[in-house]
Amino acid sequence: MSAYAIGVDLGGTNLKAALVEREEGVVTDVSHPTRAQDGPDSIVDRLRSTVANLAEQAPAPVLGIGIGSPGAINLERTTVSHPPNLPGWEVINLRNELEAVANGCPVIVENDANVAALGSAYYGAGRPHDSFIMATLGTGVGGAVIYQNRIFRGSTGAAGEIGHMTIDYEGPLAKSGVAGAIEAYAGQQFLTHHARLRLINRPESLVYELAGENLTALTPRILFDAAEQGDAAAREIFAWVGHKLGAVLGSAVNLLDIRVIVVGGGVSAAGDYILDPARDALHDFVAEALRDGLHLVRETMGNEAGLLGAARLVFEGEDAHVGD
Amino acid sequence: MSAYAIGVDLGGTNLKAALVEREEGVVTDVSHPTRAQDGPDSIVDRLRSTVANLAEQAPAPVLGIGIGSPGAINLERTTVSHPPNLPGWEVINLRNELEAVANGCPVIVENDANVAALGSAYYGAGRPHDSFIMATLGTGVGGAVIYQNRIFRGSTGAAGEIGHMTIDYEGPLAKSGVAGAIEAYAGQQFLTHHARLRLINRPESLVYELAGENLTALTPRILFDAAEQGDAAAREIFAWVGHKLGAVLGSAVNLLDIRVIVVGGGVSAAGDYILDPARDALHDFVAEALRDGLHLVRETMGNEAGLLGAARLVFEGEDAHVGD
Repeated sequence: MSAYAIGVDLGGTNLKAALVEREEGVVTDVSHPTRAQDGPDSIVDRLRSTVANLAEQAPAPVLGIGIGSPGAINLERTTVSHPPNLPGWEVINLRNELEAVANGCPVIVENDANVAALGSAYYGAGRPHDSFIMATLGTGVGGAVIYQNRIFRGSTGAAGEIGHMTIDYEGPLAKSGVAGAIEAYAGQQFLTHHARLRLINRPESLVYELAGENLTALTPRILFDAAEQGDAAAREIFAWVGHKLGAVLGSAVNLLDIRVIVVGGGVSAAGDYILDPARDALHDFVAEALRDGLHLVRETMGNEAGLLGAARLVFEGEDAHVGD
Repeated sequence: MSAYAIGVDLGGTNLKAALVEREEGVVTDVSHPTRAQDGPDSIVDRLRSTVANLAEQAPAPVLGIGIGSPGAINLERTTVSHPPNLPGWEVINLRNELEAVANGCPVIVENDANVAALGSAYYGAGRPHDSFIMATLGTGVGGAVIYQNRIFRGSTGAAGEIGHMTIDYEGPLAKSGVAGAIEAYAGQQFLTHHARLRLINRPESLVYELAGENLTALTPRILFDAAEQGDAAAREIFAWVGHKLGAVLGSAVNLLDIRVIVVGGGVSAAGDYILDPARDALHDFVAEALRDGLHLVRETMGNEAGLLGAARLVFEGEDAHVGD
């Protein structure tokens, strides 16, 4: 029997939402600018009308609304606090705010990285695995842990913050305040900054041409295009960050004894330029006794993972386990 | 009603065992030299007779035998593979080996660090907490994770290996093969080696006198005695290692969102000389958003934790949860 839920990805740039059928996946999806500068009331209004519109299009009543959000989520999975990309947003209970459009159905809010991991677990690269560590490379470095087919939430729901784990106790400070956190190497701004430094002595690099000679406009995409055209400097930059990613993932494997890693997020589009060096480093940073069965794969699903995972928050309550 | 189990701590130096009553704790305990050089058959013989002796002293039939062991333990908790301090020991199924003396009762084998954490959870510093991270400072750096009153075992039972987590991707190589693993700073041999290096330019240090002028005989105990007498160099060495310990524990907190840490093991007897700097660093290496409720305490129980935890493996099967 068909079963529908609405999945929402509340991002700093776009508010995306989808009507999702349990087996089929996304039926209809929409994307609106979040207009973060308009403030939280306006965002919540837009969220409400988006959800109401999708619910009207559902061939059967929706079972609930799942929302992936940045910021801190409470243990009850109702409230979003201080999302970093939504200025003026302090603490908002989205379950209450959406009560009118939810018609008595559950409204479940979850950390965006956890939601992406859930999407991967049900519909993506994580599907064959009961347990895996997810790392997402984007503006920041996110993370999540799926353990025995469930999100591992920790004591307050904030578990999985791989981006804040250090690989150098004397390293550069990340936004989180942590010295040498992997985010201070692999987060998008840090990555392009490190890349600029490394390119100073590489005037022959294609990157200059592709970036219009102006490295202030450098993006991971430009580095990728250069790497694809055989540029040695661009490939070395990805190898440099991949090595560091492998080091932090090795620490996570040593602690969790979960040996499958799924890497997603925009920057992971650089694929094996990052992931091959990450695999080599992962091997080296996992204790010898724990190296059997290490497996690092890429999640190719992109934004859809967040929408599917958000909808899965609703279906998950009805399932005994993630999976088929 | 009284309930008895036998707890065993299978160490490289001593084979310890205790008859444990569920509420009272240790009733009788014994310790024999392991005589690792005699080989595994001889150790297993001694283990069998030790257990049989204790079982005879029990006022009521014992409910089972729990064994904490170094080395890799299989998921079924029956087999010990390649314990590092027991030469010639390859793969031995202790459940089978103890079958005759167990009289049909369960025999459960578990990683020694997990067992120590279980002891702490039931009888020690971990008792007030549903979830905590345990780090043990001894010959090596061990670790375990208690999550929602259970040992977090990971995919193969090897979770919790804090000692192998890196804090410097270009740091010294630990025995596990991992560069900059905390064990390469805080493991006993590494710690005394780093201490010797730091003492080269500190001829005024009391450590020289206490170690008989010969730093090859340096131990953490000597450093502690010097620190207690006000020796600045000894205190700086403990602060140096405490800082690194705090860094790796910060990484673990970021990943697990478990904010209580219990530190045990012989070297932890240095107490706040290590733990105060570790607390400061822990704060700095946990992301700002996760710093509420951080709590680092010392497990003062010592070896007893291993015996009590081993016995608890037996009682645990009968309990819904750890705790009272």
